[in-house]
Amino acid sequence: MIVIMNHCAGQEDIQLVIDKLEQAGFRVHLSKGVERTIIGAVGDRTQINDIALEAMPGVEKVVPIMHPFKLASRVFKEEDTVVRVGNLEIGGDHIQVMAGPCAVESREQLLEAAEQVKAGGATILRGGAYKPRTSPYSFQGLEEKGLKLLAEVREITGLPVVTEVMDTSTLPLVSEYADILQIGARNMQNFFLLRQVAKVGKPVLLKRAPSATVEEWLMAAEYILAGGNSNVILCERGIKSFESYTRNTLDLTAVPVIKYLSHLPVIVDPSHAIGNWRFVGDMSRAAVAAGADGLLIEVHPNPPEALCDGKQSLTPQNFKALMAELRVIAWAVGREMEEI
Amino acid sequence: MIVIMNHCAGQEDIQLVIDKLEQAGFRVHLSKGVERTIIGAVGDRTQINDIALEAMPGVEKVVPIMHPFKLASRVFKEEDTVVRVGNLEIGGDHIQVMAGPCAVESREQLLEAAEQVKAGGATILRGGAYKPRTSPYSFQGLEEKGLKLLAEVREITGLPVVTEVMDTSTLPLVSEYADILQIGARNMQNFFLLRQVAKVGKPVLLKRAPSATVEEWLMAAEYILAGGNSNVILCERGIKSFESYTRNTLDLTAVPVIKYLSHLPVIVDPSHAIGNWRFVGDMSRAAVAAGADGLLIEVHPNPPEALCDGKQSLTPQNFKALMAELRVIAWAVGREMEEI
Amino acid sequence: MIVIMNHCAGQEDIQLVIDKLEQAGFRVHLSKGVERTIIGAVGDRTQINDIALEAMPGVEKVVPIMHPFKLASRVFKEEDTVVRVGNLEIGGDHIQVMAGPCAVESREQLLEAAEQVKAGGATILRGGAYKPRTSPYSFQGLEEKGLKLLAEVREITGLPVVTEVMDTSTLPLVSEYADILQIGARNMQNFFLLRQVAKVGKPVLLKRAPSATVEEWLMAAEYILAGGNSNVILCERGIKSFESYTRNTLDLTAVPVIKYLSHLPVIVDPSHAIGNWRFVGDMSRAAVAAGADGLLIEVHPNPPEALCDGKQSLTPQNFKALMAELRVIAWAVGREMEEI
Amino acid sequence: MIVIMNHCAGQEDIQLVIDKLEQAGFRVHLSKGVERTIIGAVGDRTQINDIALEAMPGVEKVVPIMHPFKLASRVFKEEDTVVRVGNLEIGGDHIQVMAGPCAVESREQLLEAAEQVKAGGATILRGGAYKPRTSPYSFQGLEEKGLKLLAEVREITGLPVVTEVMDTSTLPLVSEYADILQIGARNMQNFFLLRQVAKVGKPVLLKRAPSATVEEWLMAAEYILAGGNSNVILCERGIKSFESYTRNTLDLTAVPVIKYLSHLPVIVDPSHAIGNWRFVGDMSRAAVAAGADGLLIEVHPNPPEALCDGKQSLTPQNFKALMAELRVIAWAVGREMEEI
Repeated sequence: MIVIMNHCAGQEDIQLVIDKLEQAGFRVHLSKGVERTIIGAVGDRTQINDIALEAMPGVEKVVPIMHPFKLASRVFKEEDTVVRVGNLEIGGDHIQVMAGPCAVESREQLLEAAEQVKAGGATILRGGAYKPRTSPYSFQGLEEKGLKLLAEVREITGLPVVTEVMDTSTLPLVSEYADILQIGARNMQNFFLLRQVAKVGKPVLLKRAPSATVEEWLMAAEYILAGGNSNVILCERGIKSFESYTRNTLDLTAVPVIKYLSHLPVIVDPSHAIGNWRFVGDMSRAAVAAGADGLLIEVHPNPPEALCDGKQSLTPQNFKALMAELRVIAWAVGREMEEI
Repeated sequence: MIVIMNHCAGQEDIQLVIDKLEQAGFRVHLSKGVERTIIGAVGDRTQINDIALEAMPGVEKVVPIMHPFKLASRVFKEEDTVVRVGNLEIGGDHIQVMAGPCAVESREQLLEAAEQVKAGGATILRGGAYKPRTSPYSFQGLEEKGLKLLAEVREITGLPVVTEVMDTSTLPLVSEYADILQIGARNMQNFFLLRQVAKVGKPVLLKRAPSATVEEWLMAAEYILAGGNSNVILCERGIKSFESYTRNTLDLTAVPVIKYLSHLPVIVDPSHAIGNWRFVGDMSRAAVAAGADGLLIEVHPNPPEALCDGKQSLTPQNFKALMAELRVIAWAVGREMEEI
Repeated sequence: MIVIMNHCAGQEDIQLVIDKLEQAGFRVHLSKGVERTIIGAVGDRTQINDIALEAMPGVEKVVPIMHPFKLASRVFKEEDTVVRVGNLEIGGDHIQVMAGPCAVESREQLLEAAEQVKAGGATILRGGAYKPRTSPYSFQGLEEKGLKLLAEVREITGLPVVTEVMDTSTLPLVSEYADILQIGARNMQNFFLLRQVAKVGKPVLLKRAPSATVEEWLMAAEYILAGGNSNVILCERGIKSFESYTRNTLDLTAVPVIKYLSHLPVIVDPSHAIGNWRFVGDMSRAAVAAGADGLLIEVHPNPPEALCDGKQSLTPQNFKALMAELRVIAWAVGREMEEI
Repeated sequence: MIVIMNHCAGQEDIQLVIDKLEQAGFRVHLSKGVERTIIGAVGDRTQINDIALEAMPGVEKVVPIMHPFKLASRVFKEEDTVVRVGNLEIGGDHIQVMAGPCAVESREQLLEAAEQVKAGGATILRGGAYKPRTSPYSFQGLEEKGLKLLAEVREITGLPVVTEVMDTSTLPLVSEYADILQIGARNMQNFFLLRQVAKVGKPVLLKRAPSATVEEWLMAAEYILAGGNSNVILCERGIKSFESYTRNTLDLTAVPVIKYLSHLPVIVDPSHAIGNWRFVGDMSRAAVAAGADGLLIEVHPNPPEALCDGKQSLTPQNFKALMAELRVIAWAVGREMEEI
């Protein structure tokens, strides 16, 4: 890291900073400019946050040189991480599509959706049993009953299941049923949950919080990796901006940026990002073209009857048509859509 | 709510929307313009989210007329809510200052900090026993030991304690010790936690998520109110924007906006919003001038030795000087700083 | 538009609003709910901004129903606008790539760049003679000399030229030389300039301001269309968000959104949006997959020697390789890269 | 500045960077860490932008150490700049309030407004003759006729006039009439205009662009200062964020930040930032408490009849009441409202 002293900093201030850094095990380089002194410090980046250098007299600011994540970084592990779910690989040559309804509503709805998305070409079934809803008056999910339906439909269709875990208290239950544990956008920095999820050992789908920088997102992944679980799939799902025509702003550039900074696979959820089914197809194609390892797409047998987020759900027909287009795009970027 | 049909919508599309609204108990008004048909619907606003109108054919968009919160709204309850903590009132004539270190680090540090902030004029002690940290390698708090120290220092100084609860699993423990349960910014939409916290019945300090609109923030409060606990204190602590000189952008306008839309008390945390002690004094004065019911300020006996957020902590001397200035500002807006 | 009265509004307040609307030529519908009265008004949307309804007593808020743009809207003109530049068509089946250096630096640099991008497959040459630079101490462009070089290189290579006009005072000069007049992001709402540019009659490339909503962007286009020039090409070039790893956040979803709301062609400038050449290729592919009608890409014969934005410039080799990839993506979405 | 090489950079890459820096007149320090080499460079900060270091092989990123502005910085000039307008001082002990209508609409309206704001305690009259309007169909101002009315009303009331200049072509005309030349938010980075305005020599009110960082804002001021005019008044008027209840997010923390980084005076325009008269009073008080040197407030004799921005305009009665409150706040922070 680089410590920039302000122009009033005296020799004593500088020495105090040096002492503090050396006590924390950093090697120190001093560079005196005309107006300011700059102190370079080389050492264990993971300790930087615990030294309150910017509270010391004479310190203008501290500039980190390295990203604060370590296990998640491409420098630490050069080859791509491939996460295995049954026979499927996420992060390899094949692109996986996780599709299904926003919420599990009933056996009929879920089974119909699952069969339709399977027929369309999806390889993993998504569906929420616990739903984080902005309003306390909205449908909050079928909870355990929903988990059981997911298991039953997996049995019937053979599709592995990704579903959200919202809280440490329901983690054991959700872990029994899910093939992939989804950490929702609002829980990306629920560090209690991240630490517990790491211990389960199952693949984790970590959604980006709508206000998280790429760096904060990778630090959330670092919690899981540091907890001993390296099966982390990142999922871009839109960030907050001033633009309000779409629900969030899909930050597709995050896909190649993550690929550059990290070895973890990254998928894209255009449905939640945009909040409008009309643009989901275009942005799914764009996501694959940008290098995404997969997609998370909402499909509902009858969107106007959906209990949750019908506006952003594709019909099974639209989904099927989209999958055909995606096969061509995948081929155009030298990859293949997974076929089962 | 207003349903705007697109310019291609046919009579059948319109009728389907009307039927759906009437089934959900809404009264419907139809208004046909030259280019479009507009459908007005009057009924229970809390059911709006559960009707997927925007997924219906011919629907362009749905415009809510009323805010989605009900119990939290000024229309529902006209007079200000005053939250009582022991003998103190938050939301009344007197302005309360909650001060103390970011994290409880040791008995000595906490006791020294508590005595200093009490001497300066704070009426409530803040201090984290569980710390949500961006990095898994950072100090994560003393946990139960920290809670016990808070209780001991409360005994000695008489200051009630506000401390963060991060997870439902530790809620029973934290509830034993805290006088005010703090919901951190990252947990503002942890709906599991909100529902459980409501049941405890203690006053809740609900921090605004850095990416939450005022409406989303009030909807989070609605979860607690709907759970039967009306002792909610809102806390503005900065929102995300493109400006990066300060850590977040303190949205002080939220203070009068909340006062207009809601009856709940609102306080301001300039320390976390700005991330730099240098500007905490100016913005504390501004917060009181804008009508805040209180402040949450970080004070550390020795900021450069802080294990967490030393950069944003005031020294006890600076805190004491600030409190003297705040007394004058409070008087200038017709209020008083609480004295104990 | 919908006028929502607040819950204290009396009969007199409502009547005043109705009178005002009727005087302005609107037809009025009244809808009385339990808590509030709603007034619907149908009429000329272009006059809405000039009635200060929200300043009237009893008015809670005014909700526009229609977008404020008219000539730019897809409802007004259903078929796609195709802008012609010489023999080229922007907005038709063929995708155009505008490439070249950020700034014209010298005859050698420009000629070399032009020949290289032409060899790679670009059909239009970009290059700035006037450069809006954040710092007054940075290179500000060769000005008239730069324009002359652009004209000379056009003569040699046959590539038409797009170049920025920054101010009404230099508009006559720039118009003499440019085939497409570029309005830079910072000038998107320079309404003086927009009105004057409309009069020139040449195709206009209108960059989105980094803080403009899609609606504001289309309103800027409306200025040019209302001024009598319908040859407007929109260009997405990144918006401001809290994410700071990339310079701006490329809002690719704006491409299908613009196609839905408007008939105007839309292209994408990944170079400026991202600010880092490393991700330009991925996002160029994504832009074509999302439906963009063209790309604006910075290419410099020797990026490390560039006087402006070298970091985001592709080398001619990288550009050529990217063009080959884009041909496949274009084909995959049923279009073709223009070949000359 | 600090140049961070990536972990693959070889000795040759490093030497090329060193050579390039030394040729540009920088002194270079080398620091080799375990994973990376860091190159520190000391020299003329104004030349940093013109070296495309980040385009060189092996360079990871370049971190500037100093702010890019020089003449605008507090380090360059330690004492506060006080801008004189007639007998008034902006940036001294006395707080100035600039008030008046958004737009000049007629002689009667302007004169009435001027007399009312003068009676309330304003010391400078604001009023737009040229109005930048989002819609081409909105009232665009009385132009030259408006300027003449401003001059006439100045004659009658003795209040100096601040009015916006939108374009270099009308700068000579506006300069004849204005006492303070206002650069609107949308023109903050209109560098052509900034350079020309600097030459006029009159005080300049530079509004912050709603998407500008504090650093970009000070760089815009630097253009005027570097052009030889040091009479620059900065004006915070709200920035873009995801929050949509208010028009923009008033970034009041920018006030003490500007005071820390720069010697220039800074005022606040709560009317445009918020877009709703209801919260203007609270935020005016907060602005003065935060240390603002003045306020820019919209006041209209009859807001519902305003041709522009009536919603955000105070009535003369509300303005007068606010001024009384501001006198107490000013006193509470050790300053005084100007009295004439």
